[in-house]
Amino acid sequence: MSESNLVREQHEFWMRRAIQLAYQGQYSTRPNPNVGCVIVKDGQHVGEGFHPKAGQPHAEVFAMRDAGEAARGATAYVTLEPCAHYGRTPPCAKGLVEAGVAQVVVACPDPNPLVAGKGVQILRDAGIEVITGVCEAEAHQLNLGFLKAMATSMPHVRLKVASSLDGRTAMASGESKWITGELARQDVQHWRAISGAVITGIETVLADDCQLNVRQLDGIDDLSKIVQPQRIVLDRQGRLPLTAKMLEQPESVMVMGPFRQELADLGVVQFEIQPLAELLKILVQQHQIYDVMVEAGATLSTAFLQEQLVDEMISYVAPTLLGRSARAMFTADFNRMAEQLRFKLKDVTQLGDDIRLRLIPSQETL
Amino acid sequence: MSESNLVREQHEFWMRRAIQLAYQGQYSTRPNPNVGCVIVKDGQHVGEGFHPKAGQPHAEVFAMRDAGEAARGATAYVTLEPCAHYGRTPPCAKGLVEAGVAQVVVACPDPNPLVAGKGVQILRDAGIEVITGVCEAEAHQLNLGFLKAMATSMPHVRLKVASSLDGRTAMASGESKWITGELARQDVQHWRAISGAVITGIETVLADDCQLNVRQLDGIDDLSKIVQPQRIVLDRQGRLPLTAKMLEQPESVMVMGPFRQELADLGVVQFEIQPLAELLKILVQQHQIYDVMVEAGATLSTAFLQEQLVDEMISYVAPTLLGRSARAMFTADFNRMAEQLRFKLKDVTQLGDDIRLRLIPSQETL
Repeated sequence: MSESNLVREQHEFWMRRAIQLAYQGQYSTRPNPNVGCVIVKDGQHVGEGFHPKAGQPHAEVFAMRDAGEAARGATAYVTLEPCAHYGRTPPCAKGLVEAGVAQVVVACPDPNPLVAGKGVQILRDAGIEVITGVCEAEAHQLNLGFLKAMATSMPHVRLKVASSLDGRTAMASGESKWITGELARQDVQHWRAISGAVITGIETVLADDCQLNVRQLDGIDDLSKIVQPQRIVLDRQGRLPLTAKMLEQPESVMVMGPFRQELADLGVVQFEIQPLAELLKILVQQHQIYDVMVEAGATLSTAFLQEQLVDEMISYVAPTLLGRSARAMFTADFNRMAEQLRFKLKDVTQLGDDIRLRLIPSQETL
Repeated sequence: MSESNLVREQHEFWMRRAIQLAYQGQYSTRPNPNVGCVIVKDGQHVGEGFHPKAGQPHAEVFAMRDAGEAARGATAYVTLEPCAHYGRTPPCAKGLVEAGVAQVVVACPDPNPLVAGKGVQILRDAGIEVITGVCEAEAHQLNLGFLKAMATSMPHVRLKVASSLDGRTAMASGESKWITGELARQDVQHWRAISGAVITGIETVLADDCQLNVRQLDGIDDLSKIVQPQRIVLDRQGRLPLTAKMLEQPESVMVMGPFRQELADLGVVQFEIQPLAELLKILVQQHQIYDVMVEAGATLSTAFLQEQLVDEMISYVAPTLLGRSARAMFTADFNRMAEQLRFKLKDVTQLGDDIRLRLIPSQETL
């Protein structure tokens, strides 16, 4: 192996460790991004850290504290470009300069206009060697919503659907519990927990009195340590009952519909009725909600897809046939194959007797 | 590891090799079963063979020829109980005795009433130690149809379906090509090639003028070496056109429908109209067809499922939505969840952008 390949492999090895660390904050950093940092000197790991929570120090600060004097002359691996601005904490780029690191390796540039390129510039101005783009694609996955929102002011939208093999979600009567099994239902909790908000329609709330919060997470004993998603109800006719279970925590409920004083009295944030795309933009710009999960019925799910607002569809398929008079999972109607909505398959996972597909909408025609 | 565990692991190691060998005949032995044999002496592999084709010697014969004198005092691993009857070849159990093997390890007992237990008895009577049941489940997969047919006089039935994620197979107009991609369509060829017959309905033939034969197989250059499946058309009103492409090879076409002299003149085997279960039994008893693949439209596929004739469903799902007015993959109608047709998931495989599920019908209710 050539020396340059060897160096690259070392960089990737340590960056992957930094990415793993960053995932430790995946349920708690919102609205901040997940960031991990590893400090390496003479091939030895001398310090590491990750950003645990908004208001707490950034990953680099924890890693430098961990390394202490050993940071001097070391290489710092950071999954996201070190910040250059004074926010709740002093800029990390300055911290790295003061700690005397010799080299900084960065995975993703920061797309935040307040920071982009400035962190790297501060480091270079101080004579520190900076390498960028190492494991960028993997590190990008850490912060799909944050990175998209900073670049476009739109959130990353995941549409969750669960259906039978014949594409049905319930019997004609509405009877539906349960199509998918326990493992699939547990898996949904993860996606909710990495989301800033879960959006649903009023029909789903009226039918199921669902809470759409996170009630169980693999590896997390104390759910009070995670940031629960907002629950957003699209309720054009103002039908959300004040007795709805989700209103037991009104501070994490938002409603799009006609203004209702009684909801305002509970502290529920309300949005005017507007196109879905506009609502999503407001979530980013006014509420720092960067990852949205849609868990809704066929009508709303279809609207999100047809308005091309979906970045990823999480599709659970249960190995059962509900028959052709059962309810369809989408309401779209097409006459020709050319109109079909196609996806790229990102991956497929078996969850007990069910499967989970991760699908990316494709603009390609056949 | 205890000595007995070590011995068992060695037996399993060599039996897996014998199973691998047996698969080399998977496209060519029909109606005979796939069988492999490995001969081992003092821990060394001294001979091996598999059954390649009906009319040719059995696996044990090839393995003994390969081992020569080294077979004396050796252990023979055979995936199926050695035969005890004179068929096209002399009984293999006698051959093993004459070759002087000291021990025979068998995976599956032979369910053929002509053979069951007799092969093992011949060996034991000659003072040979016989161990049975090693890797039986794996070896059973080699001959699902043969083993089921011998035990029950019914074939192993695989139902192939291909649908969109929303459970549709074509637009309302009938437009359908192609929902799944190239890799999925290639995969279908394998399942056809291990089948004694492919059953379809007349509507599918009229719509697609399909041939349902094997036209391409991974790893097989010369398709003339495989046994092509029979194509069976269910044609209750006698509508199969004499110009149908599949009638270019009339010797491998069978039709269930009203008797037609012109089909008889072509050499097409015809069956009286009868229940599907009766037809399947005739395929086993009169035509040595032990593995059946159903590739049909929604009506016939649903009939096979509802009459509980399906052993395994091979379901290809393409990542696309065809919309709710597109054609449903099954015609069954249920009112209550309790009526749903559930399956156990055997495995899931990604094939390009499509997935393939192998599903076993489940009698369990939820």
